[in-house]
Amino acid sequence: MAGNTFGQVFRVTTWGESHGAAIGATIDGCPPGIPLTTEHIQADLNRRRPGTGGATSPRKEPDRVEILSGIFEGCTTGTPLTLIIYNQDAHSKSYDHLKDIFRPGHGDYSYLMKYGIRDHRGGGRASARETAARVAAGAVARRLLSFHDIDVFAYTLSLGGIDAENLDFEAVWENRLFCPDNEAAARMEERIEAVKKEGDSLGGIVGIIANGCPPGLGEPVFNKLDADLAGALMSIGAVKGVEIGSGFMAARLTGSQNNDALTPEGFSSNNAGGILAGISNGEPIIARVAVKPIPSISKPQNTVNLDNEQVEIKIGGRHDISAIPRIIPVCEAMVCLTLADHLLRLQTLEWTPESLEMDEL
Amino acid sequence: MAGNTFGQVFRVTTWGESHGAAIGATIDGCPPGIPLTTEHIQADLNRRRPGTGGATSPRKEPDRVEILSGIFEGCTTGTPLTLIIYNQDAHSKSYDHLKDIFRPGHGDYSYLMKYGIRDHRGGGRASARETAARVAAGAVARRLLSFHDIDVFAYTLSLGGIDAENLDFEAVWENRLFCPDNEAAARMEERIEAVKKEGDSLGGIVGIIANGCPPGLGEPVFNKLDADLAGALMSIGAVKGVEIGSGFMAARLTGSQNNDALTPEGFSSNNAGGILAGISNGEPIIARVAVKPIPSISKPQNTVNLDNEQVEIKIGGRHDISAIPRIIPVCEAMVCLTLADHLLRLQTLEWTPESLEMDEL
Amino acid sequence: MAGNTFGQVFRVTTWGESHGAAIGATIDGCPPGIPLTTEHIQADLNRRRPGTGGATSPRKEPDRVEILSGIFEGCTTGTPLTLIIYNQDAHSKSYDHLKDIFRPGHGDYSYLMKYGIRDHRGGGRASARETAARVAAGAVARRLLSFHDIDVFAYTLSLGGIDAENLDFEAVWENRLFCPDNEAAARMEERIEAVKKEGDSLGGIVGIIANGCPPGLGEPVFNKLDADLAGALMSIGAVKGVEIGSGFMAARLTGSQNNDALTPEGFSSNNAGGILAGISNGEPIIARVAVKPIPSISKPQNTVNLDNEQVEIKIGGRHDISAIPRIIPVCEAMVCLTLADHLLRLQTLEWTPESLEMDEL
Amino acid sequence: MAGNTFGQVFRVTTWGESHGAAIGATIDGCPPGIPLTTEHIQADLNRRRPGTGGATSPRKEPDRVEILSGIFEGCTTGTPLTLIIYNQDAHSKSYDHLKDIFRPGHGDYSYLMKYGIRDHRGGGRASARETAARVAAGAVARRLLSFHDIDVFAYTLSLGGIDAENLDFEAVWENRLFCPDNEAAARMEERIEAVKKEGDSLGGIVGIIANGCPPGLGEPVFNKLDADLAGALMSIGAVKGVEIGSGFMAARLTGSQNNDALTPEGFSSNNAGGILAGISNGEPIIARVAVKPIPSISKPQNTVNLDNEQVEIKIGGRHDISAIPRIIPVCEAMVCLTLADHLLRLQTLEWTPESLEMDEL
Repeated sequence: MAGNTFGQVFRVTTWGESHGAAIGATIDGCPPGIPLTTEHIQADLNRRRPGTGGATSPRKEPDRVEILSGIFEGCTTGTPLTLIIYNQDAHSKSYDHLKDIFRPGHGDYSYLMKYGIRDHRGGGRASARETAARVAAGAVARRLLSFHDIDVFAYTLSLGGIDAENLDFEAVWENRLFCPDNEAAARMEERIEAVKKEGDSLGGIVGIIANGCPPGLGEPVFNKLDADLAGALMSIGAVKGVEIGSGFMAARLTGSQNNDALTPEGFSSNNAGGILAGISNGEPIIARVAVKPIPSISKPQNTVNLDNEQVEIKIGGRHDISAIPRIIPVCEAMVCLTLADHLLRLQTLEWTPESLEMDEL
Repeated sequence: MAGNTFGQVFRVTTWGESHGAAIGATIDGCPPGIPLTTEHIQADLNRRRPGTGGATSPRKEPDRVEILSGIFEGCTTGTPLTLIIYNQDAHSKSYDHLKDIFRPGHGDYSYLMKYGIRDHRGGGRASARETAARVAAGAVARRLLSFHDIDVFAYTLSLGGIDAENLDFEAVWENRLFCPDNEAAARMEERIEAVKKEGDSLGGIVGIIANGCPPGLGEPVFNKLDADLAGALMSIGAVKGVEIGSGFMAARLTGSQNNDALTPEGFSSNNAGGILAGISNGEPIIARVAVKPIPSISKPQNTVNLDNEQVEIKIGGRHDISAIPRIIPVCEAMVCLTLADHLLRLQTLEWTPESLEMDEL
Repeated sequence: MAGNTFGQVFRVTTWGESHGAAIGATIDGCPPGIPLTTEHIQADLNRRRPGTGGATSPRKEPDRVEILSGIFEGCTTGTPLTLIIYNQDAHSKSYDHLKDIFRPGHGDYSYLMKYGIRDHRGGGRASARETAARVAAGAVARRLLSFHDIDVFAYTLSLGGIDAENLDFEAVWENRLFCPDNEAAARMEERIEAVKKEGDSLGGIVGIIANGCPPGLGEPVFNKLDADLAGALMSIGAVKGVEIGSGFMAARLTGSQNNDALTPEGFSSNNAGGILAGISNGEPIIARVAVKPIPSISKPQNTVNLDNEQVEIKIGGRHDISAIPRIIPVCEAMVCLTLADHLLRLQTLEWTPESLEMDEL
Repeated sequence: MAGNTFGQVFRVTTWGESHGAAIGATIDGCPPGIPLTTEHIQADLNRRRPGTGGATSPRKEPDRVEILSGIFEGCTTGTPLTLIIYNQDAHSKSYDHLKDIFRPGHGDYSYLMKYGIRDHRGGGRASARETAARVAAGAVARRLLSFHDIDVFAYTLSLGGIDAENLDFEAVWENRLFCPDNEAAARMEERIEAVKKEGDSLGGIVGIIANGCPPGLGEPVFNKLDADLAGALMSIGAVKGVEIGSGFMAARLTGSQNNDALTPEGFSSNNAGGILAGISNGEPIIARVAVKPIPSISKPQNTVNLDNEQVEIKIGGRHDISAIPRIIPVCEAMVCLTLADHLLRLQTLEWTPESLEMDEL
């Protein structure tokens, strides 16, 4: 009910505040027999680490994950996995001057309205730090998907108004912004430097591809695969829009342009983004998300304090200029979690009299 | 699991196929004591009826709703409401020629891959007809919201590449397309007529506004209000994209442009679309959805049959040119269902020692 | 939330009041491809019908079920099944004299406290009539189980203080009380006749056996198979106690008496009732439920009215003397629903890298 | 799905194995503003500690709980609470001789059948150690209930065939077995000593009372309060039976004996155990559970090994003679969790137009 659990079969509950003792994730429903070590998880966490891209702040965050339960002799047991990351570099004091002020673009106001109390230290539960737990859980889902030859990756499609013009996916690993266009990446870095000087921040667009999904993932009505992906991606704090396949462009096309013709060799295009009527069709799954600019900026802004008096605020400290590229592994994690959940649900429906003759029990 | 239930407190399960005996919705979790008659529901169903807008087919679909349970002496009792609409105008025969062919842009292929069987009659469960049950359930949610002074409405923002340039919300009721710009509506109608002659179809964009939402709706992490709205709206068959507030535009703004400053009189702008950190902030909730063109077109298309042989298909019969405007009450219904669910969840968290002193039990 | 849905994969929502238009059940999560007709369901409903046993009232209740959705060409499609039974023999008027009085042993008082309103006509949603919808849904579960060679049946173990002393399961079909001891059944019938003259009613004990369950059903902690069975059976209105295997007798045994030894030929006893640590072990599943006497009796009783004044009440009309035997198919239905749900959950966990090599996708 | 989560609004997920790094519980849905420290939780954990009663083994288990998240300035914040207890006294080696043998009465066989792998160290997830996490979470629920003047306590009603004959609840705190009859407690201790010498173990019956519950807790059909209590209590490993109110005795009474008459001063008896038609009626809630004898006994037993060969097993080491009295706080915890969940659900339904006029938002 309280919204900290994701998924129906592969169920993940994240917990922890940015300035508490630890953050973590508990996964219930992971099948037994999957080889899993902290290294599989650490690899994804490291990609989320500050310093990965030019847009990120210098804050040190080692983010070492430990597995507290659910593993026996190197394999999952089918019992709950608890992943924990202890908080180390938390300066609560540096937030004290913010405790009576509502930061524009943050959840300060809406949280206080909802709960009547508010943990002002770095945003508490609303902090982007919570996403480290998602990335850890997503890495377990990714491990499960890898045994089904499903691969999920995300990349920077646009940043600060500069769009990738080539989609050369080799290039993604050649620049700090995970952009499939090295030349555009260079201009994005320049834009970041310029905006940093102004004390401002930037938004962008992340593209996501899942290759290898079998047809049949997704449920027909409310839990369509695209619906669950949209909910999953929009649950990332900075995301303000989600598209599947041709997305908003579809609004401007005709049916004959947007329909993907079938041929004996398969679909001739992929405007559907790999999902027809909410169910995967075996083509790559394609999504894009709009990422808003980081709301914490050092430029002066108008806001009010708890007494509803007008005040000016400048947010100092270590803040990223853009949620990109650190949001990239978070996007991947949410897609991995959604696909893992639907992959395991799929099994459920395969239980037909016919399949029985294969003597599955 | 199988995806036909929406919501966690105000829970709606829809059921029924386009060419079966009936479609319907069962609502579990509606509070007792709400005055409700079939008229409240019928009003919304009538807006979804064919013939409402120029883009719709002439098929007659009276769609009379009945309430089978959950009402006593004109009020809800707190027990499940079952709403039923019997199917009357179903020509199964007219679909027989399609039973061995995969229609491009439809779920024919993905359904067969998932279930191993397929109800080819008008798409079965994947038919847009299923949305009548959503509209009926949404009308009950709307009734609940009305007692909290929350009002949800949607309108045509773009159709066939023609955008509304004025947002004169009075005009919405003055043209058949529910467009807030009468002049643009006229050009949209012309575009529809032209495309109809070509045997093609059109997409568009629907705008949605919810006024009167109290602050505090939404859960902090996975069930953020915007996440649940995105999932709800993307679960409508034709929708390929969802935006909240400044949406994809946010990707091109700086933090100082996109942040909504607070003043003693309230927020000075609404780029957040009424939602901060996943929780409503008391401003109007703003969403937009991209609607793909209707995939059923009479223009010839390439596809394959069950034997994977190339065939040409022309889809005759009564088909709308655009899902707009009939999709408008469906969008409203999904937003009403999401808000009703979160409104009732909100109560849950208000149960604090402090509130107790109000002697609520 | 509001408690009208049972199961997590095979999900059943029942709806309808005893004196409304209809009662029914919607099943979401039934696998596709199961041959199913109304006859499969009607057979179980007929066993629940009044007149089956000597303890039941003469009220005529044909209870004809219709399937409104989820079937195509005689098989389930994987989409929701809606089963409906229209109410025909409902005399609301005969309840009018009760509308201001709380009947002892009924939910009149607790419902009014909870909802602030109360449908006094035959108990509304609290009526035993609701169980017809459970039996209908249970028959679909039974059909699914039959393809896995799982068989569930229940019988009268005790009625009015008279216990079956033989467990001759052939005899169950030879007397109207479904008692495995014909001689005891005859004495039970005598007891019923005697109590009927006194205007009183009787309780009893129902035994339940599920044969053919594979090992592995049940989840380790909160959704142990015995926990879910206990919840399912206790959700039947008249049930006040549930035992598994040696049950309350286990409280008086030593470990060496109660443990079931394993031999190369299998377990040498079944005090566990087929469930070890919450998970089925391949032995028959054994449960017993205590059924309270019907609270509606014509003997005078003390109670209060809405003004909290002492009044005497005699409940006339057509009432059973005992919930047994009509409760027997209801017990079976709840066990079938529980087992079907766990059978489908089982699949979920079978999705291991090893099983993958069997090329299931 | 995988069964490690309890509750729908106040949701608890427990995790951890008996010989892993730690066990714990994550609570999602606890309201904000509740004063909570580790001391509140530790008090209940200490009552579950070995050495509390004569039936328990001398194993030292300090079980210090830490709160990792969800607390700010001494109060709950409405975000997830994670409670952790690190494992300290775990001798995995002492279980090595058991790894190829199925212990009678344990989950060894059924777990292997289900998962294909088995953590043999002290039962892994099936160990009674898991219940420490339930007790910790239950203590948070108890804290919530205390603000509503609801009090839950359990006691020993029977042990080794010796029944408490007086119910003097003062006496519960005067003997090590939490028995409301000091004289019976003394005989129970003698029985324990005798059985200990034989290398055997004992079962018993626990009584549970919840005082102060408001009327209206519970949902009408599947989530009746008694149904949820039965499921909750039967989910405790050693429990084989659950009764509410008059329980199995009701099977032998007539309606006029079992019905609780209403008087202007309230109910004149409580055979209903505080629950009518699944909903609390304001009377004390009364339950009893049958606890089977501890299956680990040093007396020789027959069983088989992984090769299905007959072997004899004597289980040495530190084992309790009876699950009583250590199971008592576990029973209390499950009742506290069930009541807390229903108390918070109750709020949900109070959201009526009428209640609105109280200006709750």
